[in-house]
Amino acid sequence: MLMFVTGAAGFIGSHLVDRLLAMGHQVIGADNMVRGTAENLNEANKNPAFRFYEVDLANSEDVARVLHPVFEKEAQVDTVWHLAANSDIAAGVADPGIDLRDTFLTTFQTLALARKFDMQSFAFASTSAVYGETPEKLVETLGPLLPISAYGAMKLASEAIISAAVESFLKGAWIFRFPNVVGSRGTHGVIRDLIDKLLKEPGELEVLGNGEQKKPYVHVHDLVKTMLFIWENAKEKRALYNIGPEDDGAQVSFIAQSIVDVSKTGAKLRYTGGDRGWVGDVPRFSYSIDKLTALGWRPADGSEGAVRRAIVELAAERGLV
Amino acid sequence: MLMFVTGAAGFIGSHLVDRLLAMGHQVIGADNMVRGTAENLNEANKNPAFRFYEVDLANSEDVARVLHPVFEKEAQVDTVWHLAANSDIAAGVADPGIDLRDTFLTTFQTLALARKFDMQSFAFASTSAVYGETPEKLVETLGPLLPISAYGAMKLASEAIISAAVESFLKGAWIFRFPNVVGSRGTHGVIRDLIDKLLKEPGELEVLGNGEQKKPYVHVHDLVKTMLFIWENAKEKRALYNIGPEDDGAQVSFIAQSIVDVSKTGAKLRYTGGDRGWVGDVPRFSYSIDKLTALGWRPADGSEGAVRRAIVELAAERGLV
Repeated sequence: MLMFVTGAAGFIGSHLVDRLLAMGHQVIGADNMVRGTAENLNEANKNPAFRFYEVDLANSEDVARVLHPVFEKEAQVDTVWHLAANSDIAAGVADPGIDLRDTFLTTFQTLALARKFDMQSFAFASTSAVYGETPEKLVETLGPLLPISAYGAMKLASEAIISAAVESFLKGAWIFRFPNVVGSRGTHGVIRDLIDKLLKEPGELEVLGNGEQKKPYVHVHDLVKTMLFIWENAKEKRALYNIGPEDDGAQVSFIAQSIVDVSKTGAKLRYTGGDRGWVGDVPRFSYSIDKLTALGWRPADGSEGAVRRAIVELAAERGLV
Repeated sequence: MLMFVTGAAGFIGSHLVDRLLAMGHQVIGADNMVRGTAENLNEANKNPAFRFYEVDLANSEDVARVLHPVFEKEAQVDTVWHLAANSDIAAGVADPGIDLRDTFLTTFQTLALARKFDMQSFAFASTSAVYGETPEKLVETLGPLLPISAYGAMKLASEAIISAAVESFLKGAWIFRFPNVVGSRGTHGVIRDLIDKLLKEPGELEVLGNGEQKKPYVHVHDLVKTMLFIWENAKEKRALYNIGPEDDGAQVSFIAQSIVDVSKTGAKLRYTGGDRGWVGDVPRFSYSIDKLTALGWRPADGSEGAVRRAIVELAAERGLV
């Protein structure tokens, strides 16, 4: 099948590309190369079934110039895997325009492209951040959805416009609500932040908040497998699924101590205090994956296992070990 | 208090302006005059407490040119009443860009304006269309929200980015999910469409669908009173409420027959068939206003009463009687 992956050079996108190629699909990738890197596509570029285009998907003129000539000659795309997005939640607090452009307008313009070239289906990387901060268990049937970050808001906006597109032209859509995703090629997030701090100051590791923030984590390899499982098995026209581990998360203090352990620096942890790291951060939440397990999926790893694998990978990538 | 009303020259916006002025507030109105009309502001313009600016709120340069000089000199705005939006659901099916610009980007840029000038709170005209098409009763705690029109999607996107703004700079927000709203100054919708058809062809009235579509209706005067009641009484930081009648709606067949009755044309009704009028139409739904009644509000009118009042008003405005 012919697949179109946006954000193909990014953290999760590049792992998805590798997996789709391994499954024998043809893959067209696109990325604006802001957060994505050429290195992430080193493996993919060896495969003649992969073609890549640098393009700003939020910009309709750029899309027309770069991608219209491509899809005019291509076979019909089976599934658009839309992963292009801003992935830095904190950046959008200062300037919500980042999430507007890189998360929402990329969705809007990618849908316009899908409509023009009669692409069949649409798979979207959404997030648990659409739920906002609520004492309720985060289950797909929960409302209202009141995100506390522009990141979560523009992911929810994307879900909504994809849902409308299913009514007017798409054959179907999959919406995956991701937890925190960790692993090699990660561009941001607590593990990478702490590793980079430790590289600068090996004696002491400053940790934002009181260390008790606890979030569910999934390793990127397991995430990609789960997405493909849902894509193959969910039959709803708008298949919306939480993806996550079965536990309720790993604590920041566990992550920080694991990094110090792996680093062998013997650094001391210093907590800045308070129940959250930054504006828009949700300190802890309980995430339901009952719908996913009812579909037949069992996560391979718990949150702490995913974090540990990611620390080993990122410590090597960043040069900490 | 100083109030800022967007979409001030529109159907609901102009009624809200009249009411806020009657309550003794200072009101600054803005509208792009695409769907709004100067006539809608005839009453307001007689009041020195009202000032009006024509501006495209979706366009940040236009906002900076027209509105920044205004708010640089004004007192602090208490509440932004954001009613500027596309109101034609069917138009957005053909071109989702209409809802992107006129519904979502107006929200985004109005929030940027509110942030710049430290406006305190934000009240937003959302819609039952955010719920999409579901067999469930439409209650505020329902998810997932999978709208079937760009109209519903861009209202949901607006809810989401307003919610995020509450986290970063607003004191609070009210989100009103409107049912179908009818009454004088209405710019579109089934009543106006049917009246205009009857004006063209007085002998026969063509009705889209089978006439069995049934929707909850509220008269615009009652709607404005309900918004103000929620604004005064709801204390949540993000106060999200369905607004509607206590019944489950009025049928299209009732509306069509009532129009023929008022017109005294004796026209025959002809149904085109099918369970919905157009793509994006939701044929019938059950709407919960339990949260609103728990706050202490009782709607004055049922759906059929609201429709009858609106028919009399619109038939006079359009020249049918």
